[in-house]
Amino acid sequence: MDKLFVIKVGGNIIDDEEKLKSFLQSVASVQSHKILVHGGGKIATTIGNKLGIESKYINGRRITDDDTIDLVTMVYGGLINKKIVAQLQSLNCNAIGLTGADANLMPAKKRIVKDIDYGWAGDIENSKLNAQSLTLLLNNEFVPVFAPLTHDEQGHILNTNADTIASSLAVALSGFYDVRLIYCFEKKGVLENVEDDNSVITNINKEKYKQLLDEQKLFAGILPKIDNAFAAINAGVHEVLIGDANDLIQNTTNKTIGTLITQ
Amino acid sequence: MDKLFVIKVGGNIIDDEEKLKSFLQSVASVQSHKILVHGGGKIATTIGNKLGIESKYINGRRITDDDTIDLVTMVYGGLINKKIVAQLQSLNCNAIGLTGADANLMPAKKRIVKDIDYGWAGDIENSKLNAQSLTLLLNNEFVPVFAPLTHDEQGHILNTNADTIASSLAVALSGFYDVRLIYCFEKKGVLENVEDDNSVITNINKEKYKQLLDEQKLFAGILPKIDNAFAAINAGVHEVLIGDANDLIQNTTNKTIGTLITQ
Repeated sequence: MDKLFVIKVGGNIIDDEEKLKSFLQSVASVQSHKILVHGGGKIATTIGNKLGIESKYINGRRITDDDTIDLVTMVYGGLINKKIVAQLQSLNCNAIGLTGADANLMPAKKRIVKDIDYGWAGDIENSKLNAQSLTLLLNNEFVPVFAPLTHDEQGHILNTNADTIASSLAVALSGFYDVRLIYCFEKKGVLENVEDDNSVITNINKEKYKQLLDEQKLFAGILPKIDNAFAAINAGVHEVLIGDANDLIQNTTNKTIGTLITQ
Repeated sequence: MDKLFVIKVGGNIIDDEEKLKSFLQSVASVQSHKILVHGGGKIATTIGNKLGIESKYINGRRITDDDTIDLVTMVYGGLINKKIVAQLQSLNCNAIGLTGADANLMPAKKRIVKDIDYGWAGDIENSKLNAQSLTLLLNNEFVPVFAPLTHDEQGHILNTNADTIASSLAVALSGFYDVRLIYCFEKKGVLENVEDDNSVITNINKEKYKQLLDEQKLFAGILPKIDNAFAAINAGVHEVLIGDANDLIQNTTNKTIGTLITQ
């Protein structure tokens, strides 16, 4: 099977023009099939504030009301996505910007209202993910660049977590490619001691994860990433790596820097 | 050769939710290869005003400064484009939202500064238009939906007139398909008498065009559309039609309502 890298990059890199530029140079230089999934960044909040759209959160999760879905559709699907595409194209990387609505690549379900109405938040329907169209694009040397947006097949765009999109894509394509899912962020990997950037845990399996949770060593922000990583591994993805955006090139070769998640 | 309809729709339809919905139902029902190109609409100006971005025009042409290119990238490439894609998908039309940057489909040149600096305005380089990737998408039953944006291959998105994009696409694909280019707007066609909606001129060839210009019968807004239509015809496009968005279904059959442009 051909190698495929599914690369997720988060807001901290996107918000910094120089870091983003350097990161995209790394992405462009990867000599295999690849997919880039990008998060939102602070720019959506900045533009939202100017437009008088208040950011609403309940228990740390964004509430996507009517104004907010328009805002993120503009900013994630338009501004950030197309700027990344144009930059990658200038680096001879054949990027094509996409959301889950385009070519019906990622149908999702609007989150059901129980105690909290999350609004236009979408949970991906993994069984409906359109692997056929994705393989067609990949095998014709396109490089899909995904904004964290899906759709409900009823005509509405939905807001979906970028880590989850990356994980779902990796899973759906693991039957067709030898997939390595790479979560890129601003740290060298999952840290044993949050204060010490050099305390990277090189390998986390389920047992180790349980131990780290028991010891409460992990910082809160990393937990969903590790959960998504295990979801991917359990569903057949070959390798999941959590590492520094600056180490992307090394992490697409045999040398690995960061935290490898394994069964 | 297979039939291909290149359909351009303008701001007046896009700005009206009900008209847009009805128009997209027509687009979805067209049983041939098809490409939709959409314009901007007033929403960019409305959002720009809220963001404190002033719309600047010289001689009726928009000046695309740094803030404005970000604005139109968001609104055209994100908000409008993805909403149209999601709606078409709900109608079982396999839409894929694109700009000229995506898959390097439409490289353009930033307009050279002579007397006026138009900013990030792009003039399409017709010889560089990527017909190969477009035919790949079309032949795999994707329906490209273009926002009026291109790129300069140096990492920048450019603002490009939607009528011109439609014309350039029609020309580039006329070697591969039997192309009908359809400009949809809110009138029944080109009118002999602007006050009389029933005075549609059913056919305009070059001679007739010269005569109409001499008689100053045409309203100003229609001239660039007719110029683009002739540019397409001269460059090998089979048919160009200017007609009502409501008549799209009939205009993709043998029956034609509106103004047909011919040599």
